[in-house]
Amino acid sequence: MSNEQERPRMAFGWAARDSSGVLSPFSFSRRESGDKDVTFKVLYCGICHSDLHMVKNEWGFSTYPLVPGHEIVGEVTEVGSNVQKFKVGDKVDVGGIVGACRSCDSCTDHIENYCPKLILTYSAKYYDGTTTYGGYSDIMVADEHFVVRIPDNLPLDCAAPLLCAGITTYSPLRYFGLDKPGMHVGVVGLGGLGHVAVKFAKAMGVKVTVISTSPNKKEEAVKHLGADSFLVSRDQDQMQSHGKLVMLGVPEKPLELPVFPLLMGRKMVASSGGGRMKETQEMIDFAAKHNITADIEVIPIDYLNTAMERLAKADVRYRFVIDIGNTLKASS
Amino acid sequence: MSNEQERPRMAFGWAARDSSGVLSPFSFSRRESGDKDVTFKVLYCGICHSDLHMVKNEWGFSTYPLVPGHEIVGEVTEVGSNVQKFKVGDKVDVGGIVGACRSCDSCTDHIENYCPKLILTYSAKYYDGTTTYGGYSDIMVADEHFVVRIPDNLPLDCAAPLLCAGITTYSPLRYFGLDKPGMHVGVVGLGGLGHVAVKFAKAMGVKVTVISTSPNKKEEAVKHLGADSFLVSRDQDQMQSHGKLVMLGVPEKPLELPVFPLLMGRKMVASSGGGRMKETQEMIDFAAKHNITADIEVIPIDYLNTAMERLAKADVRYRFVIDIGNTLKASS
Repeated sequence: MSNEQERPRMAFGWAARDSSGVLSPFSFSRRESGDKDVTFKVLYCGICHSDLHMVKNEWGFSTYPLVPGHEIVGEVTEVGSNVQKFKVGDKVDVGGIVGACRSCDSCTDHIENYCPKLILTYSAKYYDGTTTYGGYSDIMVADEHFVVRIPDNLPLDCAAPLLCAGITTYSPLRYFGLDKPGMHVGVVGLGGLGHVAVKFAKAMGVKVTVISTSPNKKEEAVKHLGADSFLVSRDQDQMQSHGKLVMLGVPEKPLELPVFPLLMGRKMVASSGGGRMKETQEMIDFAAKHNITADIEVIPIDYLNTAMERLAKADVRYRFVIDIGNTLKASS
Repeated sequence: MSNEQERPRMAFGWAARDSSGVLSPFSFSRRESGDKDVTFKVLYCGICHSDLHMVKNEWGFSTYPLVPGHEIVGEVTEVGSNVQKFKVGDKVDVGGIVGACRSCDSCTDHIENYCPKLILTYSAKYYDGTTTYGGYSDIMVADEHFVVRIPDNLPLDCAAPLLCAGITTYSPLRYFGLDKPGMHVGVVGLGGLGHVAVKFAKAMGVKVTVISTSPNKKEEAVKHLGADSFLVSRDQDQMQSHGKLVMLGVPEKPLELPVFPLLMGRKMVASSGGGRMKETQEMIDFAAKHNITADIEVIPIDYLNTAMERLAKADVRYRFVIDIGNTLKASS
């Protein structure tokens, strides 16, 4: 921790101190902008279910104090001397990754999100040995490679979740070839990711079926989000579908995967983690073109622990976004 | 069993009587050729590891007495009045499937190997309620839809395994897009399926790495089969590869599948079962064009139980094929 004390830029946010997951105000520091760094004032930050897993150390690699947040929108206040893509005043977005080795096969192929040495936006070690802190905080400093520009027509609060919920669904739709008109995509779970997945898939011209445990989400799925059909996943008769299953959530325990059902129907189980930076910019431009944003509930920072409790109960339609700019004060 | 007693055509083969898996001579009966049926004298039958699973009831759905065999080569002796594709004297091959509903989505899409009501070549119920018996026997009667023609230049004994080992590897290479020059395919396990997979993949122009537990298979893989490289799967450092994993064997217990490793590298776990009939004919024609056959050890029927024991120890390069035509006698 000593390195962090030496960093020159004072920052303020909310952190979890242990696996109780309770968040409270926290003063810390960030580095000065390097040559390739963009510094920005955080305006909004989405709350992803991963944040909930992480504050409670449910995946086993959390380090405390832990400042969550990887759907971070803000306005640039300073750029390093070698920054090419951004200038002061630009609206920008940072997602789940702030660093990668830039030399491995994945990085050379520009899929830095699969770099074995990728650096997560929080609870990870940065190049300089300090711990990374996320977007539940007043300022961010990030290498411009991991920053995307927000198109002018996207509202900043609704755009925040695109950097995780958006790209995490957009990327596998493209990669697994589920983006062709005439195809049929099932979206399992109508939450933060699911509702954005429906919007992207519809914009790609694909037929969309929402698959949910709750029959009462049917009207919402079909009428509000525009899904073509709806299946109740607890109904065995309805669940005879087969195809490609792309897991985007990460359960704490391994799945039990029997091979015969996988063989019958030539099914596939895959996963996908975020998206590469070039694709992330492409995703947000696509979202802007098709007016795709997340459906959000904006909350003040003081509501954070209550929001986390509600998120654990899936009591949100569909994403909490913290109004950092107006409600996070160093004196709060 | 009573139905079977009534069938008019006497047949003779070797059957397992219980889950000890020991095989012994067995007299039974088959139906007369129907309008669409092809009757053929069995000349050769490959021994697949599935046969070993089945005689020992390791998958839990074996019915006894059980006559195994689904890599069945023979010469047509009789055709039904509506048979279009075959005539007496033709050399033919039957694989793992002898029936399907012909009306479900899979059948309509001509992927009858994924029909939920498909009828396996042995230990299954046929339309008439009788049990199906496989190719460790002197004659076969099969609907012509499930019969393929063997091109003239393929030796019959070496062609037998193509109907299971061949199509089971050929089909996923095509379906999962692993057949494009420039791609890189890993073949895990150099057995009956694996060695044919190497030959198909090389013929498709793909770079092939054999992945095996046995370092001493390297020379065989590279020099004899033409693989481009070789990895020892027990060596963690060598096993950093990622991509698509298509499971073609079916372990008795579910896999334990952790999602994080699947997510990192955007890996995929899939399976595939045989191939559709049109593709099976395409596969065997492709094999004939590229002189692809299985490497086999031909055995007399009396050697069957010993062969099964050797197969359980992977002591075969790479497929046992029973010389049914010359060694199976009703008096044996």
